[in-house]
Amino acid sequence: MNLINDNFMLVSKTGRRLYDKYAKNLPIIDYHCHLSPKQIAEDYKFKNAYDLFLSGDHYKWRQMRSNGIDEKYITGDADEFEKFVAFAKTHCRLIGNPLFHWTQLELKRYFDIDDILCEKNAKEIWDICNEKLAQADFSAKKLIIRSNVKVICTTDDPLDTLEYHKALADFSIKVLPTFRPDRLVEINKDGWREYIEKTGAKSFCELLSFITEKIEYFVSVGCKVSDHGVDYVPYEEGDAEAVFAKKLNGEDITERERDIFRTAVMLHCGREYARLGVAMQLHMGAIRNNSRRMFERLGADTGFDSIGDYPIAEKLSAFMSALDYENKLPRTVLYTLNPKDNYVLGTMLGNFQGTEARGKIQFGSGWWFNDQRDGMQEQMKALANLGMLANFVGMLTDSRSFVSYTRHEYFRRIMCNLIGGWVDAGEFPDDDELLSGIVEGICYYNAKEYFGF
Amino acid sequence: MNLINDNFMLVSKTGRRLYDKYAKNLPIIDYHCHLSPKQIAEDYKFKNAYDLFLSGDHYKWRQMRSNGIDEKYITGDADEFEKFVAFAKTHCRLIGNPLFHWTQLELKRYFDIDDILCEKNAKEIWDICNEKLAQADFSAKKLIIRSNVKVICTTDDPLDTLEYHKALADFSIKVLPTFRPDRLVEINKDGWREYIEKTGAKSFCELLSFITEKIEYFVSVGCKVSDHGVDYVPYEEGDAEAVFAKKLNGEDITERERDIFRTAVMLHCGREYARLGVAMQLHMGAIRNNSRRMFERLGADTGFDSIGDYPIAEKLSAFMSALDYENKLPRTVLYTLNPKDNYVLGTMLGNFQGTEARGKIQFGSGWWFNDQRDGMQEQMKALANLGMLANFVGMLTDSRSFVSYTRHEYFRRIMCNLIGGWVDAGEFPDDDELLSGIVEGICYYNAKEYFGF
Amino acid sequence: MNLINDNFMLVSKTGRRLYDKYAKNLPIIDYHCHLSPKQIAEDYKFKNAYDLFLSGDHYKWRQMRSNGIDEKYITGDADEFEKFVAFAKTHCRLIGNPLFHWTQLELKRYFDIDDILCEKNAKEIWDICNEKLAQADFSAKKLIIRSNVKVICTTDDPLDTLEYHKALADFSIKVLPTFRPDRLVEINKDGWREYIEKTGAKSFCELLSFITEKIEYFVSVGCKVSDHGVDYVPYEEGDAEAVFAKKLNGEDITERERDIFRTAVMLHCGREYARLGVAMQLHMGAIRNNSRRMFERLGADTGFDSIGDYPIAEKLSAFMSALDYENKLPRTVLYTLNPKDNYVLGTMLGNFQGTEARGKIQFGSGWWFNDQRDGMQEQMKALANLGMLANFVGMLTDSRSFVSYTRHEYFRRIMCNLIGGWVDAGEFPDDDELLSGIVEGICYYNAKEYFGF
Repeated sequence: MNLINDNFMLVSKTGRRLYDKYAKNLPIIDYHCHLSPKQIAEDYKFKNAYDLFLSGDHYKWRQMRSNGIDEKYITGDADEFEKFVAFAKTHCRLIGNPLFHWTQLELKRYFDIDDILCEKNAKEIWDICNEKLAQADFSAKKLIIRSNVKVICTTDDPLDTLEYHKALADFSIKVLPTFRPDRLVEINKDGWREYIEKTGAKSFCELLSFITEKIEYFVSVGCKVSDHGVDYVPYEEGDAEAVFAKKLNGEDITERERDIFRTAVMLHCGREYARLGVAMQLHMGAIRNNSRRMFERLGADTGFDSIGDYPIAEKLSAFMSALDYENKLPRTVLYTLNPKDNYVLGTMLGNFQGTEARGKIQFGSGWWFNDQRDGMQEQMKALANLGMLANFVGMLTDSRSFVSYTRHEYFRRIMCNLIGGWVDAGEFPDDDELLSGIVEGICYYNAKEYFGF
Repeated sequence: MNLINDNFMLVSKTGRRLYDKYAKNLPIIDYHCHLSPKQIAEDYKFKNAYDLFLSGDHYKWRQMRSNGIDEKYITGDADEFEKFVAFAKTHCRLIGNPLFHWTQLELKRYFDIDDILCEKNAKEIWDICNEKLAQADFSAKKLIIRSNVKVICTTDDPLDTLEYHKALADFSIKVLPTFRPDRLVEINKDGWREYIEKTGAKSFCELLSFITEKIEYFVSVGCKVSDHGVDYVPYEEGDAEAVFAKKLNGEDITERERDIFRTAVMLHCGREYARLGVAMQLHMGAIRNNSRRMFERLGADTGFDSIGDYPIAEKLSAFMSALDYENKLPRTVLYTLNPKDNYVLGTMLGNFQGTEARGKIQFGSGWWFNDQRDGMQEQMKALANLGMLANFVGMLTDSRSFVSYTRHEYFRRIMCNLIGGWVDAGEFPDDDELLSGIVEGICYYNAKEYFGF
Repeated sequence: MNLINDNFMLVSKTGRRLYDKYAKNLPIIDYHCHLSPKQIAEDYKFKNAYDLFLSGDHYKWRQMRSNGIDEKYITGDADEFEKFVAFAKTHCRLIGNPLFHWTQLELKRYFDIDDILCEKNAKEIWDICNEKLAQADFSAKKLIIRSNVKVICTTDDPLDTLEYHKALADFSIKVLPTFRPDRLVEINKDGWREYIEKTGAKSFCELLSFITEKIEYFVSVGCKVSDHGVDYVPYEEGDAEAVFAKKLNGEDITERERDIFRTAVMLHCGREYARLGVAMQLHMGAIRNNSRRMFERLGADTGFDSIGDYPIAEKLSAFMSALDYENKLPRTVLYTLNPKDNYVLGTMLGNFQGTEARGKIQFGSGWWFNDQRDGMQEQMKALANLGMLANFVGMLTDSRSFVSYTRHEYFRRIMCNLIGGWVDAGEFPDDDELLSGIVEGICYYNAKEYFGF
């Protein structure tokens, strides 16, 4: 029996039926990812299996380091095939890790390979992949089309021209920008001052105008979603104008002042999102670039991030209540990197629902380190126990890779297995009239309706 | 197969036997609930299914809001049947949520209805329920009696006259008051000053006398349990008299001063509970009234509360140790709203046990948002792994509804399934001599002995 | 069917095969325990079953207290057999608690007893055990030898002469010291000043020299591992020399100053460990001696400790990054007492890996209160989801008892069941070429290679 077969991740009998009848064939809405719009617009062709699988994938780099592999074979100057072999050696030992399933799914769905990648067959698999990648239907656009994708939301800086999104207006798949102003918000991060200079804002007031203008511009290019990555959602009242001036003047600011600034900017963003019908994603809980040594050597997003353990409840509540009180809370998706927060978020939703959408406030799917079977299951179980799983907008890839759409398949299998398991155990009626709507909603229709695609 | 059948929630073969032989027929001790003693004393008759199921149930309101339903159909001026239909629409989509099971259990046990409540059959179910509710044996007292309840502990303010408890002295079921002095303890909440005025206390010393007097009065009316709802259990040494005077004088106090006051009051309560044989419940971790907008519109306890994420271990330890050091730590039940604390509480118990009772310090059953299968299981597994599940005082409803006794059935099924599953897997002997005592203890006898009913 | 049979804890079919073929017969490396090297060197003979099972086991004391047993029968002046009976009464009610399995495993493996220990058979079991304990092959050394142990690492104070370790140089099993300088590090604990006087250090600089000298001495006697027990790993920059002088001078220091001192000492230790090839264990999250009353009566390590809930991520990251930045981060094993930290640690590893070893930074096995099925499973699942389970150094006893080696059996059964369950469910290939290496590695070979035994 091949690892990737019809029943992969489907232990539940009902789950198999639900997946096969309702989940399998629905299109994909990938409402949050990190694909390069340039690569899509230019219909990028992959040089080889290294380029496709390894060149930008810090998830894989991280596990190779965990396996004691020298950086030379990860981000260093080793030959690309050598790096592929180094990964193959690691891969077949990744028992219980989502990468093992992801990679095997990608090999199966895009290259029809069933073998478990390991050192022994690395050359054979390398050759098969490279041969196929040389064919026309393995370009960026072709990979997206054959994956049955309808909508892609990339992640973009406010200063981005969005030229590639505009260039993609004719593409059969919607490729929409996401407004992500982290570099502007994070006043204490390196490069903030240079960033502010680029915005042209001389005062806090001008900065808010810049933000408004940019959100409006994004919306004009099709933006439906925004995104904020924060350690925790801040809520601190105070004089943001003064903090802005102080920092711009080169002075150090306190943690409290940092949060005064961040709060004011994020509240302004929230109000504008509400006004313009843009959903707000809040990604909480990452500690980035933990190894100073490797940060200096490789920069950010290279596999040195981990999970923080901040208390988040009180400030998040205050932040959302402030917008809610003005009737300016946008549709919001809350994500946490620390599963200890699942129950906090699962209840926070319920405080701020509204009639703008079923599940106006959403609990985002297991994010990053939680994007695996246990993480997704725990998120869905928390959501079900505390709120309405049936209204969940479901999966997104959060990925930089053009073959990560198999993660939607992975999610759907796990979701159908979870729901099917409840039915098998007699905890929910075995009634397809109820079940089909729930499953199809989570796979596709909820996101379509919620974000307004 | 109907959803509610003999094997509901019982996947384990041994669990089915344990439930059937030992758990099913035992009476109920509901040692913590929010029933109105007035409604019991006056033997309240329910106007209709809305009155019984929806009029005061913020759990249901919350999910209706999550489903995008307008407040008009929740707490607003819509017709009561329209509200029932709005709930029915939400209900059949509540997959994985305890409300789904609770409501179906209530429909089955009290109205013999097997159908899954949905929009289509809402009128039919509405009519059946209303017809039965018009009959004599659906009054408040009759519902309690037919539920096989022996003891009810309501939740009462120190200023309560307890007249209804006294009036119920002749009722075949014990209805006892619970001393819950939150309004007195929470010095920074609105209305505290007005509350203190009503106590007549002019000094902190007089306030303590008031407390003592009131606990004694409660005990004279049958009180066996007290209750405190706190964000976290405080422990701060300082001059509580000075804080009391400052606050009464209209001045703002610091967070530290707030805790000095709360600590002193709660220590005094603890000592008096120990002296008078009253058990102390500590409910930790709620953040209440998160939406300021809705709080101003609807007030408290309307479905806008959520789970906090305070660190609790150090201060709770210091608080308990302070009483323990004086040999004045009462029997204590620790509850947390945040399941991240399960292991903290599960070990905290073990530090302060005593000979007054088996399991003098208890870990309370999955509370509020955790009052569901996963939450109850996690609490019981934590308790078993870290302490003695066999001494657990078990379930309580914590409810405002007269049909919530089915939650005891729900708990017992889940508990028997958990224990039975261990036996099925060969992890505990399949020996009814051992098992019956454990199961019967958790269902009934432990609570009876522990609280002294 | 006896509780302890071939399939004990092995529900998974593949798990049974893996345990039987690959795990069962491998030797034991117990790289962290609290055995007395003196008792080993002197080949201690146990007086009776109380002496072996109960005299020093605060896990058992704790549960006896949870069962309402008087201290007289725990640590008091009751007869030793009476104490054994008091434990027996508690034992058979310990459903779901690891002690139940541990004790039954110990009775089976060392005394061939299958009966479930209870009050009724306590005398019979007492007699059987005592008879065997009187025989020559039940001495400390014999128990170790028959348990198939290859290496034992005890836990030792820097001031220890290590005379018993030296005396054991000829013993067929390696008994190695572990450098554990907690008494030196914990500047605010009672006895710190007296301890520093014994080191002879007059300045902070001299203290560091003392540490270096002692680590070198430990290494000369075979030390491969060090250990630090901390509430949280500190990271605070500042003048440690000044703090040292202030405290030695009898003045109070702030929490921040405490952390300045602890950081400086621990960084120094870390550098020296790296230089000398000693692995560093960090045990985080205990709150000790919670009951002041019982601490004054019985002292430390008597069953009054519990789980703390400190935020740990940021400071741990800074501490590790500081050493990593100097290329002086030793091989490190991170343990947490609070399972809420599993995902924090599981990701922290990945930030600081290196080529010195596969899995240079390790996530330590479920510690203390987590040393049970759920705790071990959660740790392994977190490690697998976030890193490489295949490189895990596996189990240790952390025990003071000579019959705790059965905990390695317990762990191996649970680990094989977990991995086997994944295979049964089709989540990993049923391929013994891959599986045997993983299972044997976790049981034995990974630890052997990692620590360099």
